[in-house]
Amino acid sequence: MMKPLSVLNQAVGKNVMVELKGRKEYRGVLDGYDPHMNVVLKNAEEYTDGQLRRRLNIVIVRGDNVIYISP
Amino acid sequence: MMKPLSVLNQAVGKNVMVELKGRKEYRGVLDGYDPHMNVVLKNAEEYTDGQLRRRLNIVIVRGDNVIYISP
Amino acid sequence: MMKPLSVLNQAVGKNVMVELKGRKEYRGVLDGYDPHMNVVLKNAEEYTDGQLRRRLNIVIVRGDNVIYISP
Amino acid sequence: MMKPLSVLNQAVGKNVMVELKGRKEYRGVLDGYDPHMNVVLKNAEEYTDGQLRRRLNIVIVRGDNVIYISP
Amino acid sequence: MMKPLSVLNQAVGKNVMVELKGRKEYRGVLDGYDPHMNVVLKNAEEYTDGQLRRRLNIVIVRGDNVIYISP
Amino acid sequence: MMKPLSVLNQAVGKNVMVELKGRKEYRGVLDGYDPHMNVVLKNAEEYTDGQLRRRLNIVIVRGDNVIYISP
Amino acid sequence: MMKPLSVLNQAVGKNVMVELKGRKEYRGVLDGYDPHMNVVLKNAEEYTDGQLRRRLNIVIVRGDNVIYISP
Repeated sequence: MMKPLSVLNQAVGKNVMVELKGRKEYRGVLDGYDPHMNVVLKNAEEYTDGQLRRRLNIVIVRGDNVIYISP
Repeated sequence: MMKPLSVLNQAVGKNVMVELKGRKEYRGVLDGYDPHMNVVLKNAEEYTDGQLRRRLNIVIVRGDNVIYISP
Repeated sequence: MMKPLSVLNQAVGKNVMVELKGRKEYRGVLDGYDPHMNVVLKNAEEYTDGQLRRRLNIVIVRGDNVIYISP
Repeated sequence: MMKPLSVLNQAVGKNVMVELKGRKEYRGVLDGYDPHMNVVLKNAEEYTDGQLRRRLNIVIVRGDNVIYISP
Repeated sequence: MMKPLSVLNQAVGKNVMVELKGRKEYRGVLDGYDPHMNVVLKNAEEYTDGQLRRRLNIVIVRGDNVIYISP
Repeated sequence: MMKPLSVLNQAVGKNVMVELKGRKEYRGVLDGYDPHMNVVLKNAEEYTDGQLRRRLNIVIVRGDNVIYISP
Repeated sequence: MMKPLSVLNQAVGKNVMVELKGRKEYRGVLDGYDPHMNVVLKNAEEYTDGQLRRRLNIVIVRGDNVIYISP
C-alpha cells in the first residue's frame, strides 16, 4: 500500500499532471509539495479546456482546487 | 459494524469506483488512501458523463471532491 | 434527547435513506459510520432525481455532501 | 444573553423549523443536536419551495447546510 | 481598536441587521452569539430580495452564511 | 517582509476597501479585525457592482467572503 | 525539493502573479505572506478577464481564493 503523500514524494523531479476544478490543468516538473497538496511545478504549462494558455517558469498551485495529480 | 476507513483498507489491491462531484468517475485498483479519503489508484480510467476520457497509470484523487467510493 | 451520532448508531443494520446535495439519494443497509457522517451502505441503490441509476454491493458515501440521513 | 446552543437545548422536545440552503425546509420535533448544529427531528416534514415533499419518522439533518433554526 | 466579537457583544439587546449569502436578510434584537458568528435574534424579520417573507419569534442564524452584521 | 495581519494592524483607524465575493465592496474606517480577517468598519459604504447601496455606521464583515483588503 | 512556502519566501521583494477563482488576477511585488497563502502585494494591478481594472498601492489578497502564485 502507498499513502497518497508517499506517491507525491516519489514523483518529485518527474513530470506530473495536475487537474483542477474549473477545467484547468497544469503540467510540469514536480519540485515540491506539502500535506495540503499544495504543489510547486517547474517549467509548467497551464491549459484551460485543453488549450495551452500560459507557460510559467515556476508556479505554486494551491491544493484546495486539485481534483487529481498524476505522476 | 464496519468503519468507512476499514472498508477502504480492505479494498486495497482491488478494483474500486470513485465518483466525484462534477459528473466525474475514476475506476482502477486501489493502491492506498489516507484519512481525508485521498486515494491512490493504479491502472485508472477517468470518465466524464460516462465517457472514457483518459487512462492514467497512477493517480492521486483528492478526497475533497469524492461523493462515494465503491469497492 | 438523542445525539445525531447515537441515532446513527442505533440504525446500524437497518435500512436508511441518505440524501445528498445534487439531487442524489442512496438507500441501503447501514453498515457503519464515523463522526464526519461518512457512512457505509450495503446492498445500496443510487437514485438521481428519483430515478434508480445504479446498484452497489457496498459503498462508502462521504459525509461532506450529506443533507440528511433517515433511518 | 442566550448562546445559540443554549437556545437549541431549550427547544428539545418542541417543534422547530430548520431552513437549509437550496430552498429546503424541515419541520418536526427536535429530538437532539450536537455542536455542529446537526439536528435530529421526529415526525418530520420536508418541504421544497414550500411544497410538502416527504414525511420522515426520524431524520438527522446535517448542520452544514443549515441557514437557520427557529424553535 | 474593537475586535469583531467585542462589537457583537456590545450589540446584545439591540437591533441588528444580518445579511446572508443568497440575498437574504434578517433583522431583530440580538439575543446571543458564539465565536462562529452564529447569532440568536428575537422578534426577527426575514427578507428575501428586500421583501418581508416571515416573522420569527426567535431564530438561530448560522454564522457560516453571514456576509455582515450591522448593529 | 510584512505579514498580512501586520498590514491590517497598521491600517486600523484608516480608510480601507474590502472586496467580497459576489461583486460586493465595502469602504470605511477600519476599526478592528481578528485572525480570520473578520473586520469592523465604521462609517461604511456598501457597493454592489460599483453602485452605492447602503451606508452603515458600524459593520462587522465576515472574513470568509473577503477577496482582498486594501488600506 | 522546495516546499511551497519556501518558494513564496524566496519570492519576497520580487514581482509575482496571483491567479484567483472568478477570472481575477493580481500582479505586484510580494511584500509578505502567511501559511494560509494570504499574501501582501505592493504596487499591485488587478485584472478581470485580462483587463486592468484597478491599481492598488498595497493589498492583502486572501489565500482562500488563490488558484496559483507564480514568482
